[in-house]
Amino acid sequence: MNYIGIDLGGTNVAAGVVTEKGELLGKASVPTPRGAEAVADAIALAARQAAGATGVPLSGIKAIGLTAPGSIDPETGVALRVVNMDLENVPLCDMVSRRLDLPALLENDANAAALGEYVAGAGWGHKSLVAVTLGTGVGAGAVLDGKLFTGFNYAGMEAGHTVIRRGGRQCNCGRKGCWETYASATGLILSTREAMALHPESALWQLAPASDRVSGRTAFDAAQTGDPTAREVVENYITDLACGLANLINLFQPEVLCIGGGVSAQGEALLAPVRTILDREEFTRSSPRRTQVRTARLGNDAGIIGAALLGEYR
Amino acid sequence: MNYIGIDLGGTNVAAGVVTEKGELLGKASVPTPRGAEAVADAIALAARQAAGATGVPLSGIKAIGLTAPGSIDPETGVALRVVNMDLENVPLCDMVSRRLDLPALLENDANAAALGEYVAGAGWGHKSLVAVTLGTGVGAGAVLDGKLFTGFNYAGMEAGHTVIRRGGRQCNCGRKGCWETYASATGLILSTREAMALHPESALWQLAPASDRVSGRTAFDAAQTGDPTAREVVENYITDLACGLANLINLFQPEVLCIGGGVSAQGEALLAPVRTILDREEFTRSSPRRTQVRTARLGNDAGIIGAALLGEYR
Repeated sequence: MNYIGIDLGGTNVAAGVVTEKGELLGKASVPTPRGAEAVADAIALAARQAAGATGVPLSGIKAIGLTAPGSIDPETGVALRVVNMDLENVPLCDMVSRRLDLPALLENDANAAALGEYVAGAGWGHKSLVAVTLGTGVGAGAVLDGKLFTGFNYAGMEAGHTVIRRGGRQCNCGRKGCWETYASATGLILSTREAMALHPESALWQLAPASDRVSGRTAFDAAQTGDPTAREVVENYITDLACGLANLINLFQPEVLCIGGGVSAQGEALLAPVRTILDREEFTRSSPRRTQVRTARLGNDAGIIGAALLGEYR
Repeated sequence: MNYIGIDLGGTNVAAGVVTEKGELLGKASVPTPRGAEAVADAIALAARQAAGATGVPLSGIKAIGLTAPGSIDPETGVALRVVNMDLENVPLCDMVSRRLDLPALLENDANAAALGEYVAGAGWGHKSLVAVTLGTGVGAGAVLDGKLFTGFNYAGMEAGHTVIRRGGRQCNCGRKGCWETYASATGLILSTREAMALHPESALWQLAPASDRVSGRTAFDAAQTGDPTAREVVENYITDLACGLANLINLFQPEVLCIGGGVSAQGEALLAPVRTILDREEFTRSSPRRTQVRTARLGNDAGIIGAALLGEYR
C-alpha cells in the first residue's frame, strides 16, 4: 500500500505519493490559500493531483499524513497554532479525512522531517536518528528505537530552545542564550551584522554592501576569501553549533545525527570543523561506537515522506 | 516471580529481593572487597543473605540485576570500567550467573536508579520519567514509553555533560561549562568556597570555620540565617540547576522529572524557586500538559529496585 504525505507551508501545499518504504513516487504542489476550509480544499486538491500524476488511485492509498509548522495535537488531529497561516484550533485531520475519505494523521514539521530522514534518508538502515534543521530557527526531531519521539505531550525535541550560554542572546521563547539564537541562520546573520558594524574594513561589506543584504552565506563566502572578520564569525558559529550538537549526542547517543536546512548547504566546510570539535567534546569520543554526523539527504522532501509514513512509525 | 537487585558501590554491596511490581521485600549488605573474583563472591553472598532474610528461596528468583557506577556493556554483561573499584573489562554477569545459577543483567547506576523511580517511586503510574541525581556529579537516566532509554551505544543521558555556559568552568570530561560543574554538590561546594574567599565577613565562615569543612548544605544553611553572600550562592546555584532542567524538559517532555541525590534533601527550599524559574523558561509553560517536577522518593533503594527490574524494562 502507498501513502500520501502533505507538507503544509506558508507558500505552498506540497503533496507526494510515498511507498511504505519511503520511496517518493510523485509530487504535486498548489499555492497555500487563506482560511481553514480553503486550506483543507487545497490539501485535498494537491493530494488528488499527486495521486493522478503518479497513476495511483485514491482507493490504493492507505492513509494521508499532514505536517505543519507550529503546535499541533496528534491525538485529536487538531492544528493548535500554525505559524504564518492564521490557523488556530483547526480540526485539520477531520476536514481532510472528510474530503478524501482517507484516515488522516498530523505531526509538526521538524518531527516529520526527522521521520523522513530516518526512513529514506540519512538514517536509513540505522536504529536511531536525531535530525537538526538550521533555518530561521533550529528545529529538531528524533526517531528512537524505530519510533518517532515527541514526549508525553507531543512538545518534545525543542533543541533550539536549550540554553548553551546562560544569560546570552535574548530568544523569542523568553529564555536567554538559547542554542537557536546562535546556531540558526538568523543567529548567523545577526553575528555577521554585529561583526560588520565593528569592522568597516571587512570584506563582508563587499559581499553585502548593506547590512540588510546579509544572508546565512555571507560570512562563509567572505571567510573563503581569507577575510579575518568573516573567519572569526564562522569559527564562532561553528563552535556554538558544535556545542549544541555535543549536548544532543551526550544525551541521546543516536546512531546518526543529521544536519539539514539552509546552512547545511555548506557541506564539509561546515561539518569537517564540527567533527573536529566533537572529537574533543563528546563523552564517548574514545568509544568505538560513536554517533555518525552527516548532512540530511532529502531536502524539502523529508517532510512529505515523513508525513506520509506517520501511520507506520507512531 | 521475584527478582534480586544488586547495587555495587565502592563501600558496600547492597542486595534486595524485589517483586515484579517493584516492592522491596528485604535487603542485605556486605562490605565491598578488592578484586573482581572477590567482588563476584560478595555479590553472591549479599544476594543469598537478602533471599534468606526475606524467606524467598533462590529457586523462586527469576533473575538478578546488577548496577555499578561507570561504563558497562549491557549486551555482554561486562563492566568496562567501574569508578573507584579498579574493575576493568570484568564479565560480571557471567561470574555472578555461575555462582548463583541465575540469569544476570547489568546496567549503570544512574539508569538503574531512574528505572527504580519509574516503577516504584516518583514516576509510578506515569508514562515517562527523567531522573536527575545531584551528587558528586550530575547523573541522569530516562524511562521513555515504558522502556529504559540509553542510546544506541548505551552511553546516553549524560545530562551532567551538557554545556549550559559555553567557556565556563572546566569539567573533568574535557568540556567547559558543563551543567554538572555548577549543579552538582561538588559545583555548589566550589561556588561556596569562591564566595567565602571574596567575603570574609560572611556567616558562611561561622558554619564552616575552614574552607575544607564546606558541604553541599553550608550555603543553604547560611542563606536561611539571612546571610547575603550565602543567598547569592544559593540563588546562582538554583538558576544554573533550573537552566539545565528546563533544557531537559524542552527536549524530553517527560511526564515526571524527579530530582534525587544529596542536594535534593533541601526539598521545597530547592524545588519551589526551581519551579518559579521553570514557569518562565519552559517552552510549554502555557500548556495544560506540563512535566511535573518532584523529588525522588526511593533514596538509595532506587538502584536496587531498578537493577532488579532490568529484565522487565529493557
